[in-house]
Amino acid sequence: MEADEATTLLAAVPGWELTGEARRLRRTFVFTDFMQAQAFAVRVGETAEEENHHPDISYGWGYCTVVFYTHKIGGLHQNDFIMAARVNGLL
Amino acid sequence: MEADEATTLLAAVPGWELTGEARRLRRTFVFTDFMQAQAFAVRVGETAEEENHHPDISYGWGYCTVVFYTHKIGGLHQNDFIMAARVNGLL
Repeated sequence: MEADEATTLLAAVPGWELTGEARRLRRTFVFTDFMQAQAFAVRVGETAEEENHHPDISYGWGYCTVVFYTHKIGGLHQNDFIMAARVNGLL
Repeated sequence: MEADEATTLLAAVPGWELTGEARRLRRTFVFTDFMQAQAFAVRVGETAEEENHHPDISYGWGYCTVVFYTHKIGGLHQNDFIMAARVNGLL
């Protein structure tokens, strides 16, 4: 999709930001220790597996960052925003 | 520790590399799908929790990257290499 369309859809997924010239959708979640961050990463991963649309996940002590994009188009698809909304629902 | 000491210890942890001016210890592990990568990340995390020495972990479809360093010294400590060896043992 075009960058302006991505910007419009972004309003539907609070907390997420566009990166990489609007080709990536990213959010960092904050936690109070390592295991909570890991537990969240796993919930994100299980949701991704159900939908067969997998993010890149980074986590460590107190944080978990999730990045969605659609590999086959090298950028963002509506599905990435749907997944971001589902991840927000895991909080 | 000094960079030359880190280089010496590196020989004890096959597959790991020094990054960030020898202040980080990193290895990327390759898998055949997302869930295997996530399962490995969780095993690494559980080991880290046992030792109370937590890495930064990044994973996605087919890969898991683990980075150790010691926050309070802003660089590498012998414990980082011990953890790297333990992670190698999880394979």
